[in-house]
Amino acid sequence: MASSEIDALTQALARLPGLGPRSARRAVLHLLKKREASLTPLLHALALVDERLETCSTCGNVDTANPCSICADPRRDSRALCVVEEVADLWALERSRLFPGRFHVLGGRLSALEGIRPEDLTIDALVGRIGQGGIDEVVLAMNATLEGQTTAHYLAERIERFPVRVTQLAHGLPVGGELDYLDEGTLAQALRARRPVA
Amino acid sequence: MASSEIDALTQALARLPGLGPRSARRAVLHLLKKREASLTPLLHALALVDERLETCSTCGNVDTANPCSICADPRRDSRALCVVEEVADLWALERSRLFPGRFHVLGGRLSALEGIRPEDLTIDALVGRIGQGGIDEVVLAMNATLEGQTTAHYLAERIERFPVRVTQLAHGLPVGGELDYLDEGTLAQALRARRPVA
Ligand SMILES: [Zn+2]
Ligand SMILES: [Zn+2]
Repeated sequence: MASSEIDALTQALARLPGLGPRSARRAVLHLLKKREASLTPLLHALALVDERLETCSTCGNVDTANPCSICADPRRDSRALCVVEEVADLWALERSRLFPGRFHVLGGRLSALEGIRPEDLTIDALVGRIGQGGIDEVVLAMNATLEGQTTAHYLAERIERFPVRVTQLAHGLPVGGELDYLDEGTLAQALRARRPVA
Repeated sequence: MASSEIDALTQALARLPGLGPRSARRAVLHLLKKREASLTPLLHALALVDERLETCSTCGNVDTANPCSICADPRRDSRALCVVEEVADLWALERSRLFPGRFHVLGGRLSALEGIRPEDLTIDALVGRIGQGGIDEVVLAMNATLEGQTTAHYLAERIERFPVRVTQLAHGLPVGGELDYLDEGTLAQALRARRPVA
């Protein structure tokens, strides 16, 4: 029995969100059965991502270049900075093509439950970017969750000493809603009606 | 945006059973965020499976050697042959350590609905193995599903001209149950009480 190789692959797959040990085993069997149609493309795609993609050291986006194509694009409005929890949120906003500025990815949200503190996120780097000047508006585009809003309030306090307008996405987001799951229309409305943080 | 690499990986993951497009995207983001803890081990495990594992040309098992360790093991009882639908079923039986003989993996089950015909499975190879002689008993260890039982009846007819005892796992398997999902106790009981095909 090829137990060690298969166990290692099963465990690696089982660590993905949405796959438990049982479904990881099913996935491994599928990969073994459909090697050319399934295993080879997955291996190739994963190797390319591993080889080509890196995290932008300015904004935290994931791209084939560092700085990323958004940070490097001179047509983007450098005076507007949109702060998001995760890269997925950045991508959701980019798909909507509604925000002309640049981004800052926190890498998560403050969470007492999960023990995530300010120093676990890229908050110091964000404050550093704003401190360098040249930014007029900071859009806090946190998820409409308790933790997202707690994070937004914390960020608003950290930023209030700078001469920038701090806004957040309009409510109208469904309660408990996560940016990455919203349709573009809802996102567009929320972005258009963004308002100053009280 | 690193869209092509990420899209390719998302699509490759979305093809796995249990992952749709939405959860594949979540998985990709997880892999990008936890590169060292998640992407690197998965890439490594997948590359090892791709490099080391092959399908046994005798029985259809997946192993690091061809013939596989079961086919090559002289302590296995070569007179008993257990026919299973999938490699997963072979592994389930091996985990129970109850069957001392060798295996034959069909690669599926007959299915009018899915258009799977006898020639899509390794039935000719099975008949060939039995025709070579030296086998006393063929255990038809199909799933207790309609399609599994249809396949077992078809196989029993194809095999009846040979001087072998054809048995099948005792009923007592839950109706609709799939071998791979059963606990070892149930499997053990079904194997112990196996009976000749009527
Ligand atoms: Zn960037
Ligand atoms: Zn074999």
